[in-house]
Amino acid sequence: MEWLTQISQTPCINSMEAAQQRQSELTKPPGSLGDLECVAMRLAGLQGHCFPTLDKVHISIFAADHGVAAEGVSAFPQEVTAQMVHNFLNGGAAISVLAAELGAQLDIIDVGMVMPLEREHPRLISARVGAGTANSAQSAAMSGQQLEAALTVGKEAAERAAQQQAQLFIGGDMGIANTTTATALYCYLLNLPPQALTGAGTGLDEASIQHKVQVVRRILERHLSQSQTPLDALQRMGGFELAALTGAYLRAAQLGIPILVDGFICTAAALLACRLQPTVTDWLFLSHQSAEAGHSMAVEAMQQKPLLDLGLRLGEGSGAAIAVPLLRQACALHNRMATFSEAAVATQL
Amino acid sequence: MEWLTQISQTPCINSMEAAQQRQSELTKPPGSLGDLECVAMRLAGLQGHCFPTLDKVHISIFAADHGVAAEGVSAFPQEVTAQMVHNFLNGGAAISVLAAELGAQLDIIDVGMVMPLEREHPRLISARVGAGTANSAQSAAMSGQQLEAALTVGKEAAERAAQQQAQLFIGGDMGIANTTTATALYCYLLNLPPQALTGAGTGLDEASIQHKVQVVRRILERHLSQSQTPLDALQRMGGFELAALTGAYLRAAQLGIPILVDGFICTAAALLACRLQPTVTDWLFLSHQSAEAGHSMAVEAMQQKPLLDLGLRLGEGSGAAIAVPLLRQACALHNRMATFSEAAVATQL
Repeated sequence: MEWLTQISQTPCINSMEAAQQRQSELTKPPGSLGDLECVAMRLAGLQGHCFPTLDKVHISIFAADHGVAAEGVSAFPQEVTAQMVHNFLNGGAAISVLAAELGAQLDIIDVGMVMPLEREHPRLISARVGAGTANSAQSAAMSGQQLEAALTVGKEAAERAAQQQAQLFIGGDMGIANTTTATALYCYLLNLPPQALTGAGTGLDEASIQHKVQVVRRILERHLSQSQTPLDALQRMGGFELAALTGAYLRAAQLGIPILVDGFICTAAALLACRLQPTVTDWLFLSHQSAEAGHSMAVEAMQQKPLLDLGLRLGEGSGAAIAVPLLRQACALHNRMATFSEAAVATQL
Repeated sequence: MEWLTQISQTPCINSMEAAQQRQSELTKPPGSLGDLECVAMRLAGLQGHCFPTLDKVHISIFAADHGVAAEGVSAFPQEVTAQMVHNFLNGGAAISVLAAELGAQLDIIDVGMVMPLEREHPRLISARVGAGTANSAQSAAMSGQQLEAALTVGKEAAERAAQQQAQLFIGGDMGIANTTTATALYCYLLNLPPQALTGAGTGLDEASIQHKVQVVRRILERHLSQSQTPLDALQRMGGFELAALTGAYLRAAQLGIPILVDGFICTAAALLACRLQPTVTDWLFLSHQSAEAGHSMAVEAMQQKPLLDLGLRLGEGSGAAIAVPLLRQACALHNRMATFSEAAVATQL
C-alpha cells in the first residue's frame, strides 16, 4: 500500500500565473466573473496549460452494501442498492441522464453489494471485496485485507480515467445506509458528536434521525478508541465504497486528474484522502453544498466554497455532474473571450 | 400604452400537477434533487406541458448611455458602452461566448447610446430612443415620450423571441453608470436609503462608492417627491435599457415565455415589471445572487432564491446565461429519469 500516501502531482505555477494574467486582460471588470475566474485559473494550473478544457469527463460510481443497514437507519430497504445499480446501467437514474447530457464516460463498479448482479453489462465492473460490510455497530466493518482491496478498486478506477485521458474525475456512491457510515467517519475526522452531524439521509423523519444518532454513537463507542489513524477508522466503520472513493481521489491526484467532489458521502472520502496525503487538496473542487445536515461542517473543514447550493442530497455523483457545465463555462469564457487590446475596449479610467 | 399593464398568461395548473406527480415517481428519494425539482415543475406549468424543454433560448442585450456618468460614478469611461457593443457583435464578450456555448439567439439592441455604431451588423438592432439619457442628478433622465419608446423597444424584443418560438427569454444590459441608475430605482422601489444599496459596480474603491452614494442621494432628492408611480421614477431616474428590460419582461410574461433574470440591473427591471403587473412574478426565475451590495435586498423583495451564488457582477445577461445549463439539466432529469415502477426499484420501507 505504498502508493496510498504518495505525493500528488504539483500544479504548474507558470500556467496558473499565465491564466491569471489572461484573466486580467479579458474584456470585463476585474473579478466580475467571480468564482468562475478562480476555477479557470486553478484548472490551468492543474492541466499545466493556460487554456484548460474539460471535454473528457470520467464518472466512476462505486456501489456497496453496509451491514449497519440492519440497524434500521435508512428510509429504503437494502435491496435498493442493487436495484439502483440496474437503473444506472439501464440509463434511468439521475447520474445516467446527467452523464449522457455531459457526454461523460460512466463506469459502475460493484465494490461489494450483498448480491452480485445476475447479468453482465459493458458498463459494470465487478470488483467485489465482500458481500457487503459487517455491521459496524457490532464489529469492524471490514478486515484489513478488505480495506486494502477496496482502496485498490478506487485506485484502478482513477487509472482507467487516466488511460482514457480524462480531464476531470467524478466519483459517486450508491449504498443503502451509507450516510450513517459517512456520519460516523465525519465524527472521527472532525472530532464532533453524532448529534451535530447526523441528518435525514434519503428521507428519515425526526424520530428516525434520533435513532440514527444512537446508532452512530454505538459505532463510535465501539471503534473510536481503537482508531489510531484514518485508515483504522475507515476499516472499522466502513464502507467499501467510501474506501474506494478515498483510493480513487488519492490516485487521481497522483496521476494529475482534477477531481470534482460530490456531496455528503464523497466529501467524507475526500477529507479522508486529504488526511492521508494533504496535497490531494490541490486537485479537489467541491461541487455543491449538500442538504444533508452535517455537510456544511465538512465543507468548512475543506476550506473551499462549493460551487452550488441547490439543496441536493441524492448522491450517485449527481451533484458533481450538475456542476460540470459551470466548470466548462469557466473554461470557455477564459479561453474565448477577447482581451481589452484585441477588442479595442478602454480599460479603467 | 395599454399593453403595459395587461395581465400575464396563466401558468397551467394541470401540467404543474402532472409534473409534481411525475417527480414523486422518479427513482430518487423525494425532494433529493432540491431546487431543480422546483424548476422542472414550474417550467412544466409555464410551458403547459408535463415534459418541459429549453432548446431555444433567446437573449436580448439592451445597450444605452446614462447622462449621470458625467458625475464620475463609474470606474470605466462612457465610450466603453459602444466599445463593448462592438465586442458583443464580434463574439469577444462574455455573453457572446456563453450564447455560442448555449446555441442561443443573441440580439444586441441599441436603445440609445451616445453615438450610434458606424457600421451595420446582422445581430445589431438600432432602436435608438435618444443619444443617452439626460443627467438624472440634474434633471429628468428622459421625457414621457422617450419612456414609452424605450418600453416599446423591450416589448418588440419579447415579440421577436416569441416569433422565434423561444422557450426562455434572457435580457441583458450594457451601459456605463447603470448601477447608479439602478441603485436609485431600488431606493425608490424598496424604500431604502442609498447607503444600504450602493455598491462597487464595475470596481469602485471605497471613496468612490461614497461619492456614488452622494450622487444617488442627489437623484432621489430631485425626483422622489415627484415619482407617484414606478413609471414616473423610471422616467425621471432612467435609463433607456432599464425601461426596455421592463417592457421586455412584461411582454414576455404576456406572451407566455419564461424569463431568466440576470443580476443587479435586470432584477431592478424585473421588480419594476412586477410592480406594474404582479402576475409577471409567475414567469420569473432568478439566475444568481449578484456580488453587487444591494442585490440581496432586491432578491429578498422578489421572494425567490436565486439558483447561483458565484460572486458574479458582470451584467450583459451573463449570469443568466451561466444558469441555463442548470435549467436544462432540471428538464433532462425530469423528462428522462425512470420511475420506480419502470425501473423495478422499491420505494420507501
